[in-house]
Amino acid sequence: MRKIEHIGIAVKNLNESNFIFEKLFGAPAYKEETVESEGVKTSFFMNGPNKIELLEATNPESPIAKFIEKKGEGIHHIAFDVENIHDEIKRLQEEGFIVLNETPKKGADNKLVAFLHPKSTNGVLIELCQEIPN
Amino acid sequence: MRKIEHIGIAVKNLNESNFIFEKLFGAPAYKEETVESEGVKTSFFMNGPNKIELLEATNPESPIAKFIEKKGEGIHHIAFDVENIHDEIKRLQEEGFIVLNETPKKGADNKLVAFLHPKSTNGVLIELCQEIPN
Repeated sequence: MRKIEHIGIAVKNLNESNFIFEKLFGAPAYKEETVESEGVKTSFFMNGPNKIELLEATNPESPIAKFIEKKGEGIHHIAFDVENIHDEIKRLQEEGFIVLNETPKKGADNKLVAFLHPKSTNGVLIELCQEIPN
Repeated sequence: MRKIEHIGIAVKNLNESNFIFEKLFGAPAYKEETVESEGVKTSFFMNGPNKIELLEATNPESPIAKFIEKKGEGIHHIAFDVENIHDEIKRLQEEGFIVLNETPKKGADNKLVAFLHPKSTNGVLIELCQEIPN
């Protein structure tokens, strides 16, 4: 857990939200990326050592579509940067956290990711992410 | 907007949640602070360049009590570190954001703070915060 890598925000319309966050940060998204396996279209904004990831659902079964249906637009998850995701998964399981992806999966932005169940983390969906080495 | 200064997380019981986040980060909260004017008892965890702030309501009228009643425990706000909060408030108002505290107020952790209305920021409660110089 070296820093907040990014905060994921669920939005209904990526283009409209890009416009809002561009005004907020005074700079546009540095990339957009669709992760079809996750049912999301994403955009990323830099903010010093951290990023903001906007997430739009690409289909009605997407976790983002379901989140917005239940809670409305807003913060979806916090992602922490980890040095070794396998070690961190093992450590957190030993501490009693419920890890949803025992085997990390490929996420957006060239990352290996795994989620912790919000039940074990005070209602907060936490993502661990590790940069995939070239 | 220089970085994510902290993420604020609404919790029902600060002691129980301190225990969870201590296990998550592998280190305890570095401070606790009550801000009676805001109706909150807080604890802070370091995470590299960022912090996590846990917030427990000190009375039933506290914004945190109302948030938990409506949405349950979870992420309450994102705070961005700004160099000059007065300049940033002016810039964001000119960009069309709704600033809830045109005059910044004293927050926890030696900060001047101002909030943006979630209506203008995709459902996300955003705090601007500037360290108060000694």
